[in-house]
Amino acid sequence: MATMDPNDERFMRRCLELARCGYGQVNPNPMVGAVIVKEGVVLAEGYHARFGGDHAEIEVLKKAGSEAMDATLYVNLEPCNHFGKTPPCAAAIIRAGIRRVVYAAADPNPDVTGNGNRTLKNNGIEVTTGVLHDEAVQLNEQFFFAMRSKLPFVILKAAMTLDGYIADVRSKSKWITGADARNYVQEVRSGIDAVLVGAKTVTVDNPRLTVHDRQEKQPYRIVLDGALNTPLQSRVYSDKFRNRTIVIYCEKSKKPRKIVQLEKKGVNVLSYKGTNDVLPLRRILRDLRKQKINSILVEGGGTVFREFLQQKLFAKALFFISPKFIGGGKPVISGINKSLQHAFHLENVSSKMFGEDVLIEGYSPLYKEYMNKE
Amino acid sequence: MATMDPNDERFMRRCLELARCGYGQVNPNPMVGAVIVKEGVVLAEGYHARFGGDHAEIEVLKKAGSEAMDATLYVNLEPCNHFGKTPPCAAAIIRAGIRRVVYAAADPNPDVTGNGNRTLKNNGIEVTTGVLHDEAVQLNEQFFFAMRSKLPFVILKAAMTLDGYIADVRSKSKWITGADARNYVQEVRSGIDAVLVGAKTVTVDNPRLTVHDRQEKQPYRIVLDGALNTPLQSRVYSDKFRNRTIVIYCEKSKKPRKIVQLEKKGVNVLSYKGTNDVLPLRRILRDLRKQKINSILVEGGGTVFREFLQQKLFAKALFFISPKFIGGGKPVISGINKSLQHAFHLENVSSKMFGEDVLIEGYSPLYKEYMNKE
Repeated sequence: MATMDPNDERFMRRCLELARCGYGQVNPNPMVGAVIVKEGVVLAEGYHARFGGDHAEIEVLKKAGSEAMDATLYVNLEPCNHFGKTPPCAAAIIRAGIRRVVYAAADPNPDVTGNGNRTLKNNGIEVTTGVLHDEAVQLNEQFFFAMRSKLPFVILKAAMTLDGYIADVRSKSKWITGADARNYVQEVRSGIDAVLVGAKTVTVDNPRLTVHDRQEKQPYRIVLDGALNTPLQSRVYSDKFRNRTIVIYCEKSKKPRKIVQLEKKGVNVLSYKGTNDVLPLRRILRDLRKQKINSILVEGGGTVFREFLQQKLFAKALFFISPKFIGGGKPVISGINKSLQHAFHLENVSSKMFGEDVLIEGYSPLYKEYMNKE
Repeated sequence: MATMDPNDERFMRRCLELARCGYGQVNPNPMVGAVIVKEGVVLAEGYHARFGGDHAEIEVLKKAGSEAMDATLYVNLEPCNHFGKTPPCAAAIIRAGIRRVVYAAADPNPDVTGNGNRTLKNNGIEVTTGVLHDEAVQLNEQFFFAMRSKLPFVILKAAMTLDGYIADVRSKSKWITGADARNYVQEVRSGIDAVLVGAKTVTVDNPRLTVHDRQEKQPYRIVLDGALNTPLQSRVYSDKFRNRTIVIYCEKSKKPRKIVQLEKKGVNVLSYKGTNDVLPLRRILRDLRKQKINSILVEGGGTVFREFLQQKLFAKALFFISPKFIGGGKPVISGINKSLQHAFHLENVSSKMFGEDVLIEGYSPLYKEYMNKE
């Protein structure tokens, strides 16, 4: 760490603001914003705007042009030093003659962390790190968690009545929550890499699981269907985004015809060893992460929630509670029957109103394991 | 209504603040504060401090003494004109030579509403009404509701896990929520007239149902025990407040010995027609209201919640949600099985955090029926 400039926090906060402009467009990449400043004057602002597009650093260096010479570059993530979809940023920073780089958090990828920092320093650039570090990690919690844990950032999302039911006795769940809460779910979906549901949800609700106003960049739709029981005509297998649907089934489910039919439609089909009900979730998640699925929104139903809870494979819970009573129906989670002393606790809990519905948000012990340390 | 003074709101807001100082001490009376002002200067402030003690008007008139002549008196409730525990305030106001009275809300008791107003006007006093009316009604919502509906203001209070359970499979419910939430329940209990629970709660949990730091002014403890099954040695029948315990049972439960034993201990025993499980709740509530029980905190368990919900006899719900999962246990309400379209909706919902627990508060249609109109 180098000397602290009193303006560092101010410009870094601006980087975080700019970074957020890429929300929903850059994942599975992190959101990154950058600012170039010379003698207290902002020369250029920019952000990573879409997956595959220029990194934020390149964006601002292009804007600043030759004026970048001897300036300070602020960015919320350590500049990369490797070829990915784009050439390394560190080299571009050096070439532009930047004198000082201030970044918030190191690259969480253990294979490359510190490389950018070293390269910059070796080329005589002054480097300041850790400015608004926690805010920067929070902003890209999905990315940081996925890189550190080698697992996707899994969010359990449920919508339930105040008496704890996710559907009435006739399995109807439309709609538990109001329009404001449902709109917010659309916003959440637009920022994650995949939505995951169980076979019963597809069979009973036949949901789209899309971001409704988008023609592209839809999240993947993952169906856990061990026994391959979901109907072929389901929306997720038939609509124009069906090539972004992934069905995960049990190897021993001998339904070759169904598999061929799904594949013919363009649906992705993956097999795993396991029983019909209990697929090897951790292995599945690790594999999905390798396919650059850094975040998954698990939208039910009860069986799927139970598995993620029991195997402790989720990072965050988003529970929408609608202020209504039905006095019976499908409980959100059942069949585990822990004692109160051995309950699963969430942490860093917060609540927020969406219309008349209340959202309760909290983090799991798994999140803590990877995120509450450097 | 008479001319509006620009300071009226300011002094009335002060009355409401003062009124709150009587919280937990004046119920089943309303909380009332009063201010005497002459030429913009506050001469006296006061409030109704304890049940049976001076009304707020008397309190300030005593403090102001002869200076009250020609002054304005502010008070959040219409001054009474009848002999209750204390002589009428209207007469004292007239005697003191007050020139103008400003109050927020009329007395909600239909038998006396407007009497104070008329008496004051007939004696040449200028009267202004309706200043901060809604805030004044809200402050004393229990009293206003009870007076208008002839039923106690019933609050359903539950503490549940985020997956909707009020106890684990072994019926343990200690503790679902943390210390902050439980302290708040103590505060709520201190401001209501009675706590009500079902027979199973007494049998399984053996709760005290008291305000823990109080030697007196405990709420009544009402046990709905149709079949007279609760153990004689239960805390609510044995501790030093047992004379404030009321057991309500079914006439046809032939357990004369149990009744005698309870009465010998000093416990109050009331019989009603009905089956063991379904007591005539509305009649019971009307009778309790006649005994000046204006507010009841219903603390469970599930059977009792179900009855109050099914018979729509509650005004407000206070649901504490603890951010933990147990994946099975006693649901907060079951056995009603409404469809989502016919769910019971709460209104004016708000949420608040107590430590890591979330309180969701809302009002019932019954509340709306009596309170959203004048």
